[in-house]
Amino acid sequence: MRVSYQQLHSELIRVLLKIGFTPERADLCARLFADTDRDGVYTNGLNRFLRFMAMIASGVVDIDAQPKLESGAGALERWDGVRGPGNLNAYASMQRAITLAGENGIGCVALANTNHWMRGGTYGWQAADAGMIGICWTNTLPNLPPWGAREPRLGNNPLVIAVPRSDGHVVLDMSMSQFSYGTLEAYQKRGELLPVFGGFNQDGELTRDPVAIEATGRPLPIGFWKGSGLSLLLDMMAALLSGGSATHEINANSYQETGLSQTFICFNVNAFRDSAARELLTNQIIANMKGAAPSGGGEIRYPGERTLATRKENMELGIPVEPSVWSELQKMWCIDFERSLHIS
Amino acid sequence: MRVSYQQLHSELIRVLLKIGFTPERADLCARLFADTDRDGVYTNGLNRFLRFMAMIASGVVDIDAQPKLESGAGALERWDGVRGPGNLNAYASMQRAITLAGENGIGCVALANTNHWMRGGTYGWQAADAGMIGICWTNTLPNLPPWGAREPRLGNNPLVIAVPRSDGHVVLDMSMSQFSYGTLEAYQKRGELLPVFGGFNQDGELTRDPVAIEATGRPLPIGFWKGSGLSLLLDMMAALLSGGSATHEINANSYQETGLSQTFICFNVNAFRDSAARELLTNQIIANMKGAAPSGGGEIRYPGERTLATRKENMELGIPVEPSVWSELQKMWCIDFERSLHIS
Repeated sequence: MRVSYQQLHSELIRVLLKIGFTPERADLCARLFADTDRDGVYTNGLNRFLRFMAMIASGVVDIDAQPKLESGAGALERWDGVRGPGNLNAYASMQRAITLAGENGIGCVALANTNHWMRGGTYGWQAADAGMIGICWTNTLPNLPPWGAREPRLGNNPLVIAVPRSDGHVVLDMSMSQFSYGTLEAYQKRGELLPVFGGFNQDGELTRDPVAIEATGRPLPIGFWKGSGLSLLLDMMAALLSGGSATHEINANSYQETGLSQTFICFNVNAFRDSAARELLTNQIIANMKGAAPSGGGEIRYPGERTLATRKENMELGIPVEPSVWSELQKMWCIDFERSLHIS
Repeated sequence: MRVSYQQLHSELIRVLLKIGFTPERADLCARLFADTDRDGVYTNGLNRFLRFMAMIASGVVDIDAQPKLESGAGALERWDGVRGPGNLNAYASMQRAITLAGENGIGCVALANTNHWMRGGTYGWQAADAGMIGICWTNTLPNLPPWGAREPRLGNNPLVIAVPRSDGHVVLDMSMSQFSYGTLEAYQKRGELLPVFGGFNQDGELTRDPVAIEATGRPLPIGFWKGSGLSLLLDMMAALLSGGSATHEINANSYQETGLSQTFICFNVNAFRDSAARELLTNQIIANMKGAAPSGGGEIRYPGERTLATRKENMELGIPVEPSVWSELQKMWCIDFERSLHIS
């Protein structure tokens, strides 16, 4: 089924107000969730909102907490997320990085002690909408074995890079594992094999079977040892810059995943006053790539390419929602939902 | 055969002085090459020096050119490399990023119009030796097909990330292709298969055969579509920040590869005055990773782990050099070498 953006946004606001968000924060938080579904990233929108509610109910997320400046060194600042809502914290941090970059050419906010930021791409779009090149990443609970190991001791640590462009920003949003557990689950439900190797089976061999990978808990880092190394460095930087926790210090129970460390960097390219030349070059880079002789394995796309088309379709036709999830959202606090959340 | 660091360094200086480098620049340039061999990265040390000489002889590299500040926006600066020696340009740029980070907490130098930086890890070690977290990357000529294509239109765009540490910095130095052409060639010479899939064969299937990959010119991006996307974004950022060329504007003849764009970022973590806590956390992150149950596929290592051991061994026993390459270096300008370079 599909619901309008307005319906989804309002329903999310209603629930957030009910559990005590201030009107302003309820509006922004609801918008960040609704925008995620609008852009087609259904794993991190409404479907994640229910888990967000459970984490609030269990006390992991403090709905009133706002990021606090810990210490500043010019264009590099450390903030404490005080375990507030992960998307509000991340949004505020990228906003601050945009301001710092406006003042200093480049700006960086390192955020400790925060919660899951939901869709990482959100903050890339946010930076690019402000005309900035943006980079951000988060660490996560341990969910990826380092290269050479069979135990998850690294996070999949999503990395986002965004470049502004009039005809649609270029936004890369990728984790360090070849497939997320959500994607493995989706293939498993459809009874399909992964399009490429996604992890190891019981015999330590590479496999496309999502069931075998879930069984071993050994998803594949992108580029084998390379993604393993990049994941390690992203975790180190996030924790050392923010003064917060590293992956191994984060609770491995996904409903208790908190105290994350994140980094937000903005580059004020507009300071260079060659925006027409930059726009032209960005488009040429894309055209050149898309013009390559195809291998026959599908379209050649740039990161974020489908977003605007999906956004347009979902704004026109309504946003696809799972009927059961939509009904669960609507029932919230029509029954004694609060108590059920505490129990779950 | 092995030669002492001193011998290698002196011999390189001798040749650089002979072709007109000033003493100070000859010393630094020779040191950057010799350090690369000392640290075991033999592809980018002496073995690359001969190609460097040929590029100077053919006029691609201007030995006297020094980076020139184009425009500054606080902690973000644009420099023109004026096609000077790639390693001297990159070294000067990272040095400037270190200074900017010292003043502003974070600093970024975007460098246009430069040449191959030889070993990227050099500038990571440089930042970490200054107590900074450093990130840098370069674009390259087109040598990697985008995901979905069979034609090289992306660069392999090496990315370097360095975190300082008393017991040896953590330095990641990785390109966006699973294996470099140099590595493919080395496996080919030994008649060995690659340890994991490294590209596509004529039938468009993934293969571990380096000969088949060289034949198709289709090495594999790390993480399939993910590395392809990351390569694109690294190129965009390098070119847009510096105002320089993007990969598709760079001559695909490797001896004419020039006009590269690079980015150097430093974070002054020492501004936060928690160096003991940071050192402890860095060591804990490494210990935690290395303590994971092994998969039996070799040791669990952090990026850069072997560097200090190799450095120690090569300083004690001498640096391994190919006898033919060493003899070629020694002969330089004992015969009419300049003319032969111009002809080659």
